[in-house]
Amino acid sequence: MLSIKLDAGSERPLIEQVYLLICKEIEQGHIRPGERLPSRRELAEQLKVSTTTVETVYEHLLEEGICESRPRSGLYVLDAHPAPAAAVRLPEVLVRWDFGTGAMDPAQFPYSTWAKLMRIVLTEQSDELLRTGDPQGSRPLRREIAKMIQRLRGFDVDPERIVLAAGTDILVAILITLIGRERLFAVEDPGYSRARRILIAGGARIAPISLTDGAINVRELYQTGAGAAYVTPGRQFPTGQEMAMDGRERLMRWANETGAYVLEDDYEGEFTFSDSPLPPLAALDTHERVVYINTFARTLAPGLRISYMILPGALRDRYCELYSACSVPGFEQSALEKFISGGYFERHIKRMRQIYRERRNCLTEHVARLHLGELHRNNAGLFELLSVNSGMSSEQLVEKARQAGVRLTALSDYSILPDRAEESGTVLLGLAGMDTEQIRDGLETLKSAWQID
Amino acid sequence: MLSIKLDAGSERPLIEQVYLLICKEIEQGHIRPGERLPSRRELAEQLKVSTTTVETVYEHLLEEGICESRPRSGLYVLDAHPAPAAAVRLPEVLVRWDFGTGAMDPAQFPYSTWAKLMRIVLTEQSDELLRTGDPQGSRPLRREIAKMIQRLRGFDVDPERIVLAAGTDILVAILITLIGRERLFAVEDPGYSRARRILIAGGARIAPISLTDGAINVRELYQTGAGAAYVTPGRQFPTGQEMAMDGRERLMRWANETGAYVLEDDYEGEFTFSDSPLPPLAALDTHERVVYINTFARTLAPGLRISYMILPGALRDRYCELYSACSVPGFEQSALEKFISGGYFERHIKRMRQIYRERRNCLTEHVARLHLGELHRNNAGLFELLSVNSGMSSEQLVEKARQAGVRLTALSDYSILPDRAEESGTVLLGLAGMDTEQIRDGLETLKSAWQID
Repeated sequence: MLSIKLDAGSERPLIEQVYLLICKEIEQGHIRPGERLPSRRELAEQLKVSTTTVETVYEHLLEEGICESRPRSGLYVLDAHPAPAAAVRLPEVLVRWDFGTGAMDPAQFPYSTWAKLMRIVLTEQSDELLRTGDPQGSRPLRREIAKMIQRLRGFDVDPERIVLAAGTDILVAILITLIGRERLFAVEDPGYSRARRILIAGGARIAPISLTDGAINVRELYQTGAGAAYVTPGRQFPTGQEMAMDGRERLMRWANETGAYVLEDDYEGEFTFSDSPLPPLAALDTHERVVYINTFARTLAPGLRISYMILPGALRDRYCELYSACSVPGFEQSALEKFISGGYFERHIKRMRQIYRERRNCLTEHVARLHLGELHRNNAGLFELLSVNSGMSSEQLVEKARQAGVRLTALSDYSILPDRAEESGTVLLGLAGMDTEQIRDGLETLKSAWQID
Repeated sequence: MLSIKLDAGSERPLIEQVYLLICKEIEQGHIRPGERLPSRRELAEQLKVSTTTVETVYEHLLEEGICESRPRSGLYVLDAHPAPAAAVRLPEVLVRWDFGTGAMDPAQFPYSTWAKLMRIVLTEQSDELLRTGDPQGSRPLRREIAKMIQRLRGFDVDPERIVLAAGTDILVAILITLIGRERLFAVEDPGYSRARRILIAGGARIAPISLTDGAINVRELYQTGAGAAYVTPGRQFPTGQEMAMDGRERLMRWANETGAYVLEDDYEGEFTFSDSPLPPLAALDTHERVVYINTFARTLAPGLRISYMILPGALRDRYCELYSACSVPGFEQSALEKFISGGYFERHIKRMRQIYRERRNCLTEHVARLHLGELHRNNAGLFELLSVNSGMSSEQLVEKARQAGVRLTALSDYSILPDRAEESGTVLLGLAGMDTEQIRDGLETLKSAWQID
């Protein structure tokens, strides 16, 4: 048991104080390499803080590589942990409530099923898992994905058109090489800033296109002479609007007339809460203009690193010329194949829909009860837009939240052109990363951080 | 039991005949979806062919997605296998002996250790494995890699400079974005054609530079104004020569004087057979000009998709700005960390060195005994160069080998500038993919394919 206590007069956030205390104990040799830290409960009781606070600090120590976790035992200081100087550097304010749109909730991952399937894969000891394998990803997995898309998203897919990669970033980088840098890539503005960054890093020239009723402005697409457009029709990111049917038809007409490619990012397609969602552009594609992009990062876990796209024939042929390896390991491919074919994937999606529905309801209810602001209503997805009438700018809202341990982003973070009046004071609240209790606590923390009465 | 037999008068290769027979049986419904194929031994006896031939055909049926393998049971025809029309399309001549330089031997993979460690990872059920994780790859794994490099390659590495990715292709694509497309990328000619292809696909301008005594010609580097050079100093690919110390010093002087980056691909660094190998360029780098690149594809298995690089500080900072995810899944990262820290990796390398040494000796011995041609002597690596004095061009040698079921490449396959007299009639024989018996059989097959007395 350590004989440490917190300085009652300190103005540092509690989490930082606890973190620095532990680092000091390690630095001064009171807890030595190989020794176990006190349990979360013990330390919480001793310091008179919540176990959540200790939990957060311990997670940070793990991330920093100062400690390791041993199952059913606890946290141990590592032999070769970073030098104390590095270890006691002030951490940023720790995130206790993550309303980030990319957040995930590990508690919901079907760990035992995944582990069971992975064990089967390991037992089979197939030689094929060790080789470079099919450059598009294994055929059996692609067949399962095609059938799953047909069932969940309602359109027919030729497995020979599917290409897997270790994340959407890599898919986008590949797409630039397939489509060619001579084409101008249109992106939605506001839009998915990470795709924009990868396009620019990949050497593509981009044209930010404004939105009209939540859909990319097709007139501007003609005007700029874009040869490709990266869009999120299922749920425009970040405004949250679904692209209407006539918008979809206009967009497809533009692609057909000009021979441009439409890159359809269907990032939350499995989690629409609409009773009658519109068909994806890929289902409306009569002239092989659409590249359909989706990921298992949202439906399973980002750490698995599995995304996929469905290519028009010409791009698929070019892919086969250029690429000789798929970036997803054989083990993961085989486990995912079994996960989908065994029906686990769709059962998981069904379960998650229910959970996300509850979280949405919780969010709606507590935003109203706490008078936090106005939620933008829509039928889909894992984040909501909240307009806060506190007189604070988006930046101030995000900064105040950060200081209180709440991570969220502002609508304006995703815009290229600055200062759209309608975006001011609007933030995105992702609900995939927390359970209902945490959502409620997070919203209450926001209320006090933003000083809303 | 099927009532099929081979047509004795057919001139098709045996493997193709067997393959087409089975496809026809499936097509005509004699073997139906869900039914088991005869065992390898049964079919071999019935058709009076070797079990290896049946094995090869069955592997092809698996790859094509017509059948699936059930452990301890056999091969079953899939419910939704590709349409018969696709199924009976003529396969290329099947590869029975793979002298490819990227080939691997699954029998040597430490499967039980890897499976054991992966099971431990799965049991720990750590949340961190599911999240996007550290964009450079997990810190504990990077620390293990740094220590391993120090022990195996003899130089100090800061783990904070290491970046992991799902394959060298992805590392190269990332490097283009870090170094910038405004720089000219010099490549060795002849050189590693896949890196060249990825550089071009990534939008980099490349300058092929000739070799002098197996080292990239530094005068040409100055002349072309290259801002980066992709080199293989440990063992030039494909000529197999080690870059001499003065060549290394000249190259580093060029980089220091011009501010260029040297991309050092140390692809077989663990398998040098020299008693006193020269230090990698990364160990000679005093001005942060070297990017060191290596992969676990050669030392463990390509299917794992794990490569890494060590970046100069400026490029590392740019990496952190641009990239928010590492493409290697959390599970693989954690298993590899345990594999290295447990000492398994270095034991495996030691074992493989011995095995490769035996294969090299076998190759040398049988090339001499069969009078196949002249081997280029050198101290390193997993492939050898063979000059064949048969009057045939490299293309003819490769094609004759292909028809006989032997995969190999010609030295000239890696050149940009055509018709170097010294390359004619020279082929590469990789020895990582086969055991000594297969190597001997393969060489005997080559002797008869090339009609060498």
